[in-house]
Amino acid sequence: MTPALPRIDETHDPARKSWVESANGHADFPIQNLPLGVFVPDGSDRPRIGTAIGDCVLDLAALSAARLVPEPVQAALAEPVLNALFALPAAERGALRQALSALLSDPSQADVLRPMLHDSATVEMRLPAAIGDYTDFYVGIHHATNVGRLFRPDNPLLPNYKHVPIGYHGRASSIRPSGVPVRRPSGQRKSPEGDTPIFGPSVRLDYELELGIWIGPGNALGEPIGIENAAQHIAGFCLLNDWSARDFQAWEYQPLGPFLAKNFHSTISPWVITAEALAPFRQAQPARPEGDPAPLPYLWDAADQSGGALGLTLSVAIETAAMRAAAVPPFILGEGPASNMYWTAAQIVTHHASNGCNLMPGDLLGTGTISTPDDSGLGSLLEATRGGSAPVRLPGEERRSFLEDGDRIIMRARAQAADYVPIGFGACVAEVIPAIG
Amino acid sequence: MTPALPRIDETHDPARKSWVESANGHADFPIQNLPLGVFVPDGSDRPRIGTAIGDCVLDLAALSAARLVPEPVQAALAEPVLNALFALPAAERGALRQALSALLSDPSQADVLRPMLHDSATVEMRLPAAIGDYTDFYVGIHHATNVGRLFRPDNPLLPNYKHVPIGYHGRASSIRPSGVPVRRPSGQRKSPEGDTPIFGPSVRLDYELELGIWIGPGNALGEPIGIENAAQHIAGFCLLNDWSARDFQAWEYQPLGPFLAKNFHSTISPWVITAEALAPFRQAQPARPEGDPAPLPYLWDAADQSGGALGLTLSVAIETAAMRAAAVPPFILGEGPASNMYWTAAQIVTHHASNGCNLMPGDLLGTGTISTPDDSGLGSLLEATRGGSAPVRLPGEERRSFLEDGDRIIMRARAQAADYVPIGFGACVAEVIPAIG
Repeated sequence: MTPALPRIDETHDPARKSWVESANGHADFPIQNLPLGVFVPDGSDRPRIGTAIGDCVLDLAALSAARLVPEPVQAALAEPVLNALFALPAAERGALRQALSALLSDPSQADVLRPMLHDSATVEMRLPAAIGDYTDFYVGIHHATNVGRLFRPDNPLLPNYKHVPIGYHGRASSIRPSGVPVRRPSGQRKSPEGDTPIFGPSVRLDYELELGIWIGPGNALGEPIGIENAAQHIAGFCLLNDWSARDFQAWEYQPLGPFLAKNFHSTISPWVITAEALAPFRQAQPARPEGDPAPLPYLWDAADQSGGALGLTLSVAIETAAMRAAAVPPFILGEGPASNMYWTAAQIVTHHASNGCNLMPGDLLGTGTISTPDDSGLGSLLEATRGGSAPVRLPGEERRSFLEDGDRIIMRARAQAADYVPIGFGACVAEVIPAIG
Repeated sequence: MTPALPRIDETHDPARKSWVESANGHADFPIQNLPLGVFVPDGSDRPRIGTAIGDCVLDLAALSAARLVPEPVQAALAEPVLNALFALPAAERGALRQALSALLSDPSQADVLRPMLHDSATVEMRLPAAIGDYTDFYVGIHHATNVGRLFRPDNPLLPNYKHVPIGYHGRASSIRPSGVPVRRPSGQRKSPEGDTPIFGPSVRLDYELELGIWIGPGNALGEPIGIENAAQHIAGFCLLNDWSARDFQAWEYQPLGPFLAKNFHSTISPWVITAEALAPFRQAQPARPEGDPAPLPYLWDAADQSGGALGLTLSVAIETAAMRAAAVPPFILGEGPASNMYWTAAQIVTHHASNGCNLMPGDLLGTGTISTPDDSGLGSLLEATRGGSAPVRLPGEERRSFLEDGDRIIMRARAQAADYVPIGFGACVAEVIPAIG
C-alpha cells in the first residue's frame, strides 16, 4: 500500500549538497527541490523534459537515453511533455526523484552528467504538459469574502461556500508559461451612461495570485477518487496568474460565471514542484472557525486534515515601465501564506471527481486567488484597491487602480520549514502589452 | 477570396444518386450529406476517418492511401481523429466533399471503393476529434426565458442577454459519443430540511437538447476572428446532450456557474455534418423583436444575418425500460426548429474569440438548450415539467419529473429545404445507468 501523503526521505536531507555548485544555497532550486519541466535548449527546436538544479537545467531525456533513471520512467522521460510521467503511479515518480537526487549529489557522476546540463539562462521554458482541461476553484476564503463584500456588503459569502469547494471550468488553450506577454483583451463592458454596452480594450485589467495543481494518474469516467487516495493523483504544483478583465466580468458573468473576462490568457510558472519535494512543508489544515460546518464525509480524511496543507509563502510584485526604466526593483503588492485556503488540494481533487468527472494526467486545477485576511497579502488589485476606488501607491509617485500597458507582474512562492532547506517555485512573470489594432 | 458562407454546388444536386443503393432516400445519409466521423471496423482496434453513405461507412483512410482524394487532405485523412482535417482551409475541406460526391455517384468507381465500405451496424463510432476545449453557450432564448422564469418570474432574462452571447466553459474530458451509457452522478444537494446539504445520487437528472459546433482552423492567441470570417472557422455541426443534475446545479452554481451538475458526461452524435453539407439549408437569422437592441458592430455581418441560421428541426425522445420491454417506440418529448437561437453560430465563434481567446481545430462549442416558445419543443425536462412540479405523461401510465435509471434519451436533427434532398444528423442516444455503489 502506498502512503496517503508523500514521505520525507533522504532526498530532503538538509545536509545533501550537489556537485552543481550553484544549487547549494539556491533560493529556488537546491538539490532538495528537483522540479520537473519542459525546456528547449538554445539552438534546438525539440522540447524535452528537464529538472532545474541551481542555475542549470539537466536534460532528463538524455539521462533517460543513457538509462541512468529507473526503467519504469524511461519512456515517459523521452516525451516532449510530462503527461506520460504524471500518469505513472506516485511511487514511480518518487523513484525518479530519488535517482535524480543520488546522481546530482554524487561527485563521481559529474563527468557523465555535465554534458547533459544547460545554463538556465540559455533555455526556453515551455508548458510542462499538454493541458487537457483546466478548472479554477475559489478556495481562498479571504478573497471570496473580499470580493463578495464588494457586491454584498452584509453577506459576502454565499450559503454554499463552506460546504462546497466552489469551482468552474476555465480555458486550457490560452494558458502560457511565464514570460509570454499578455495582450490586453477587448470586450463588452457596461457603459457608465445608458443601457448599451460598449466594446473595446479592458480598462480594469487585473492579476490573480493562485496556486496550480497538476493532476497525476486521474480517474476513469464514472469512478470517483476517494479523499484517502486523492494525494496519489496530485503530481505537483505551480504558480498561476489568472489574468482578469474586471469590467468584462461584471457585465458578462450572470448567470453562468466568468468567461471572456478570464479566458484570454493565464500564466503559469513553468516548473512543476512535485508533491514529493513538498513533503517537509506539509502542515495541518487550519482548524475551521468555531461555528463553521464540518466537511461532508466524502471530503474528510484524518491524514489530509493533519498534513494536507502546504507551508508556502506566496507573493506578487509589480514592475511598471517607469520603474524598469529607472532600474527600480519590483514592488511587492502582497505577500502571505497559502494556508488561507479553506479546502486542501486533496479536497479539491476529490470534490472535482465526486460526480464521476474524469481527471486526466496533465490537467491543471487552480486554487483561486489566495489573499490574507488583512491588507498585507491581497491577491488581486480588485481587493487591494477596493474595486478600483482606492489606487495603490507605487514607487516614484505612480499609482494603480488597475494594470497599465508595460506593467510586469511577478509571482513567487517559497516553501519553508524548520530543519529543512527552503525551496522556491521559480518566477511566474508576464508583461501586459497593448490591445490589438 | 473565399466565400463568407459555403456555396451550393453540384454536390447538393437533388438528382445526384449513389451506387451505394441504401443511400438513395436514406433519412440521414444520402449522397448529399457525406458527414465525417471516426469509426473502428469490427475486429480492428485502429480508429480511422470515414464518411457515412446510406447504411455504410466508407473508409477515408483507405481512400486516402489509394490517393483517390485531393493531395492537400491525404495526410489529414490518415489520422485517427479529424483535428488535422479541421485545421485545413475551408476550401480544401470543400474539395474533399466534391471528390467524395463524385466517387460515390460514379458507378465506374464502385468496384474500387466497395472493399473500403463497412456495414454501419458492424462498426463502433468514436469521438470525431480530440476535443481540446469545450464551451457551452446559452443562445436558445426561449430556454433562457423558461429557466429564468423559474427563478425570476417577473424578469426572466438578465440585462446582458440581448447584448452578449452568454457562454461558459465546460469539461472536454467527459464528452462521449452516442451509445456510451451515462452513469447517474452523485453530488451535494440542498436538503429540504435543515441547513446541511446531503451527498448522494442525483434525484433531478435531466437532458438538454443542443447543437454542437465543431471549430475549424481557429485563431492564434490574441488575434480575434472577425464576424465576416467566422464561417471559415466552422467545420461542422452535431447534436449534443448536455446531461444536467438540477439538484446539484441549484446548490453549487452561485457565484461561478454550473460545474459538477454538468461535467459528469456529455453525449454527442458521432457524425460531423459539415458546413458545406448544410449550405442549402441556410436561412436568414430571424429578425429581432421590436425593441430589442441591435448587435454591437463586432457581432453584425450582413451575410451572416441573411444566411447564418440553419433550417433544422431538432427533436428529443425518451424510451424507458418499460417501453423497451413492451416494444413501445420512443416517445417524442419535444420537437422544434433551430431558429430559436438568438445568436448565429458565426456570432458565437466571433464573440468567443473577440478577446483574443484562441479557438483550436476540434474544439467543440454547444449552443445551449434550444426550446420553442410554446410547449411543443421544450429541450429539457426542467422546462417540460415546470421545474419538476408537473410530470410529463409517457405511454403506458408512466410519468417523469426527471430521468430514471434505464431511461434512454434519443435526439435527432433533420435539415430540410424546398428543392433539396433532406439530410439528417444520425442519432444522439444514451441510456441512464444506476449510480455507483
